[in-house]
Amino acid sequence: MPDESPTVTALVQGKDTKGIIATITNWIFDHSGNIVYLDQHTDPVEDMFFMRIRWDLDGFVVPREEIDDKFGEVCWRLQMAHRLFFSDRKKRLAIMVSKQGHCLLDLLYRWRSGQLIVDIPAIISNHDDQRDIAGYYNIPYFHLPVTKETKPKQEEEVMSLLRKEGIDTVVLARYMQILSPKFVNAYRNSIINIHHSFLPAFAGADPYRQAFHRGVKIIGATSHYITEELDEGPIIFQDIVPVTHRDNVITLRRKGEDIEKMVLARAVAMHVENRVLIHNGKTVVFGG
Amino acid sequence: MPDESPTVTALVQGKDTKGIIATITNWIFDHSGNIVYLDQHTDPVEDMFFMRIRWDLDGFVVPREEIDDKFGEVCWRLQMAHRLFFSDRKKRLAIMVSKQGHCLLDLLYRWRSGQLIVDIPAIISNHDDQRDIAGYYNIPYFHLPVTKETKPKQEEEVMSLLRKEGIDTVVLARYMQILSPKFVNAYRNSIINIHHSFLPAFAGADPYRQAFHRGVKIIGATSHYITEELDEGPIIFQDIVPVTHRDNVITLRRKGEDIEKMVLARAVAMHVENRVLIHNGKTVVFGG
Amino acid sequence: MPDESPTVTALVQGKDTKGIIATITNWIFDHSGNIVYLDQHTDPVEDMFFMRIRWDLDGFVVPREEIDDKFGEVCWRLQMAHRLFFSDRKKRLAIMVSKQGHCLLDLLYRWRSGQLIVDIPAIISNHDDQRDIAGYYNIPYFHLPVTKETKPKQEEEVMSLLRKEGIDTVVLARYMQILSPKFVNAYRNSIINIHHSFLPAFAGADPYRQAFHRGVKIIGATSHYITEELDEGPIIFQDIVPVTHRDNVITLRRKGEDIEKMVLARAVAMHVENRVLIHNGKTVVFGG
Amino acid sequence: MPDESPTVTALVQGKDTKGIIATITNWIFDHSGNIVYLDQHTDPVEDMFFMRIRWDLDGFVVPREEIDDKFGEVCWRLQMAHRLFFSDRKKRLAIMVSKQGHCLLDLLYRWRSGQLIVDIPAIISNHDDQRDIAGYYNIPYFHLPVTKETKPKQEEEVMSLLRKEGIDTVVLARYMQILSPKFVNAYRNSIINIHHSFLPAFAGADPYRQAFHRGVKIIGATSHYITEELDEGPIIFQDIVPVTHRDNVITLRRKGEDIEKMVLARAVAMHVENRVLIHNGKTVVFGG
Repeated sequence: MPDESPTVTALVQGKDTKGIIATITNWIFDHSGNIVYLDQHTDPVEDMFFMRIRWDLDGFVVPREEIDDKFGEVCWRLQMAHRLFFSDRKKRLAIMVSKQGHCLLDLLYRWRSGQLIVDIPAIISNHDDQRDIAGYYNIPYFHLPVTKETKPKQEEEVMSLLRKEGIDTVVLARYMQILSPKFVNAYRNSIINIHHSFLPAFAGADPYRQAFHRGVKIIGATSHYITEELDEGPIIFQDIVPVTHRDNVITLRRKGEDIEKMVLARAVAMHVENRVLIHNGKTVVFGG
Repeated sequence: MPDESPTVTALVQGKDTKGIIATITNWIFDHSGNIVYLDQHTDPVEDMFFMRIRWDLDGFVVPREEIDDKFGEVCWRLQMAHRLFFSDRKKRLAIMVSKQGHCLLDLLYRWRSGQLIVDIPAIISNHDDQRDIAGYYNIPYFHLPVTKETKPKQEEEVMSLLRKEGIDTVVLARYMQILSPKFVNAYRNSIINIHHSFLPAFAGADPYRQAFHRGVKIIGATSHYITEELDEGPIIFQDIVPVTHRDNVITLRRKGEDIEKMVLARAVAMHVENRVLIHNGKTVVFGG
Repeated sequence: MPDESPTVTALVQGKDTKGIIATITNWIFDHSGNIVYLDQHTDPVEDMFFMRIRWDLDGFVVPREEIDDKFGEVCWRLQMAHRLFFSDRKKRLAIMVSKQGHCLLDLLYRWRSGQLIVDIPAIISNHDDQRDIAGYYNIPYFHLPVTKETKPKQEEEVMSLLRKEGIDTVVLARYMQILSPKFVNAYRNSIINIHHSFLPAFAGADPYRQAFHRGVKIIGATSHYITEELDEGPIIFQDIVPVTHRDNVITLRRKGEDIEKMVLARAVAMHVENRVLIHNGKTVVFGG
Repeated sequence: MPDESPTVTALVQGKDTKGIIATITNWIFDHSGNIVYLDQHTDPVEDMFFMRIRWDLDGFVVPREEIDDKFGEVCWRLQMAHRLFFSDRKKRLAIMVSKQGHCLLDLLYRWRSGQLIVDIPAIISNHDDQRDIAGYYNIPYFHLPVTKETKPKQEEEVMSLLRKEGIDTVVLARYMQILSPKFVNAYRNSIINIHHSFLPAFAGADPYRQAFHRGVKIIGATSHYITEELDEGPIIFQDIVPVTHRDNVITLRRKGEDIEKMVLARAVAMHVENRVLIHNGKTVVFGG
């Protein structure tokens, strides 16, 4: 969304209690902030409260460098966790990919055409296949091959690269390696994966082959945050495409690729626009 | 949605201005109300603000009979229009139908099974075909036939019946008569129609025949509020179903009926749950 | 589909070999039959051939009572299995149901309105809840309660009833009992079930609760033939509906019911129109 | 679809009459051809017959260079029109584009990854924006600017280029110029366009703006063959995406682009796989 003057977006979550919205909106109003977006969700089962709120910095009387501290104080008194995002500070994405380029290419096109407003300082791969496309888009390409033996060392190199480039979000655009718990913990809730099935159906390897053998009439794709349990992380977005008895493993894969790239792009946008909150293995995804 | 203790839902709309959310939420909080839902939308093109907010009456210190007056005062100062709905006061629906019963039957099933929480004091038809099903559900059935000559008189009878029964919402569940401007104005933004096409495609008569002749690959249905301009009212919900060259006018109608009843049911639910605001010929539909 | 003059539809399947289509179509043509539909599918993985072919009986020179024998001879020489269905002989359906009536009601409406052209001599239930609706449609209702102890005996009664009524197709419209292998074998490929999830995701009990806890963004329904392995039978049709974090187990169930009844109705139509062939745990579903 | 040994696909259409399928399949069988695909459609309203049939050339006793003549004789006797396509002869596509590259990029990715099996000897544009991407894929890029005055001359240059390159299919991948009747007639049923709306809704210019002002809840895209009547040609494929009140003209365009490129790619595949027949302004699209 094109923001003319800078805004700040807050994500807030914690145990539900009376007066959260009033307290927070009143604080913004008292400091001459104009709220341009507010959505909230109360989960009565978990007794949790989730809020996304955005206000104009133009005219807001709290100096920018103090906003996080002052807003944090308000949230602290409400015993709510919070994170702030300024609209003029872009997220820094690293895209990790193996041999197949369809998801990578789709993300890069959206980035170039101004749909995906982020910095992409690095494309990282265990193969060399996507070097050309990275070159076309003038993005540094890091070919870090991996074998069973070199895996821990390669992960160290990847993590060192992410730190050096100040990466805050890692997108696994069909990166066919399992990340270690250490890696996952270092980027908790910040690694977005695309799984090529409608999870929890066909978790694990080669889901299109599994789908073919089961004879399903629909295949899907799931984008989720990576957690230590494989294919079990919080789901951000899912979509499907109908198939028929005429489809074989090859055509299922092709139809699947179309859904994969669309689902990943939608999920990355939701994350980049700070619309996703996570609680108890599930996501709250607010409208755009 | 099952509400254990009664709540009140406010719909608020008007020119956008600073501090609306803070003012309103603060007023609720100051009177010990617990907000259980808030969604808002700012339309920067029209410079309009829309809000749906719901709070518990349990513990709220403003006496129930004064809430509308006091809340209205707050809105008045903000120059916002408002409406209040108490969760323990059901809407009163009249369903109007002609010969085809699929939409009627679907609504009645949802009503009987507790999905659609309303009173239905009247089913009104210009034909006698649906009397049986009304009888099965123990709802009074009013057969008010209409000819070109008797149309104004029949409409008077319908309107008189609606007044007598205290109807606030009229659902045209495939009622194949055009209502007069007088009728439409008397129930402005309260008459929900199902049009059997994906508007604005195939406005007018016999859309399935039009769709067949055009050779479209998708057909749809549109539920909208009735306005004086036929098929031009604010759209509440739309959905589609794919079709092929094997479909003829008859099978298009059958597939269409399935979409019609689903779309109408969804739109009626949105209206009954007070999730729809209207401005400038368009709707804002908040999440459930 | 409204057939003016009677037709016969043949389903043919077996190992692929040269000249099957030519042999069969030539035989029909040589006996003055006019083919009005032909679709075939070759599965190169299994090396199997599937065909659905329909021709007019009007002018066909083989006497009706000899068609099955003569056509069978042709198929026998090709080493293909076959079944014939005459358009003026309706299938005889029994619908089995437990407490929830949404799928039953939907099927009955389609039957009454002429969409579903079958005979329904029996509605069978282990509960008495749906007696009224059966009465409304003038269909005999058999209340055969079941406990752990009486289960074998109750199944005997059901099977005896099916035999007595000449039932060829059993529709489990949310019948919440597991059928014995004996029952399943007696009606192999003729018992259609609706499972309230997007199989193979959430097989087993209470799939909406499972879906809620997993936090999926889409729920679905699957209609399949019953086999001895629970939830593993050949899938006929599947569809989905998107959900959000605002959905709870109750609203998931409601949205699920809408998909269930639509998916079951579509699958029953596919079966009734003789469009489904089965091989190796999967279906071939030809266009309508 | 990966064909190991070459096959030939015939499209046949004309007035329905007895024995067409038998005559054609028998001819193939008599010459030792193995039919690997057959689908047909009878349109009872128009009394028309449509067929797509494919057989192996391996073992077929008619010499390849005589097949068209001999098969044509069979069709001539049945008074059916026909076209033959050999699987080892690729179609030759020209892609025409204006400033926006999303559809072009998507087609090129599918071509490079082996999904879209065609030759692409030319990308033609009235702007220079897409030269880079053409260069990346090593496809000659022809920048032929157009003004009101130079339009006829530019069209001559385009047509001369198409002839020189032996183009049989022209894909308008968001080419924002109206083609002259002369051009359209020269490539009748061979120019595939993507219209950025769910036709017939929002024909004409700027459909996303129209959709925004009408407040629709779904937007779509339509791929169709170009005819002399703008936006009225035979529809090949359509799809949609849901939208909400939060969408503005910019976000509608972005969501629209995703649907446009998917719909165009699907339609081009249908055409390239010789699955589309045209009659009376409508298409018959056989399964893949």
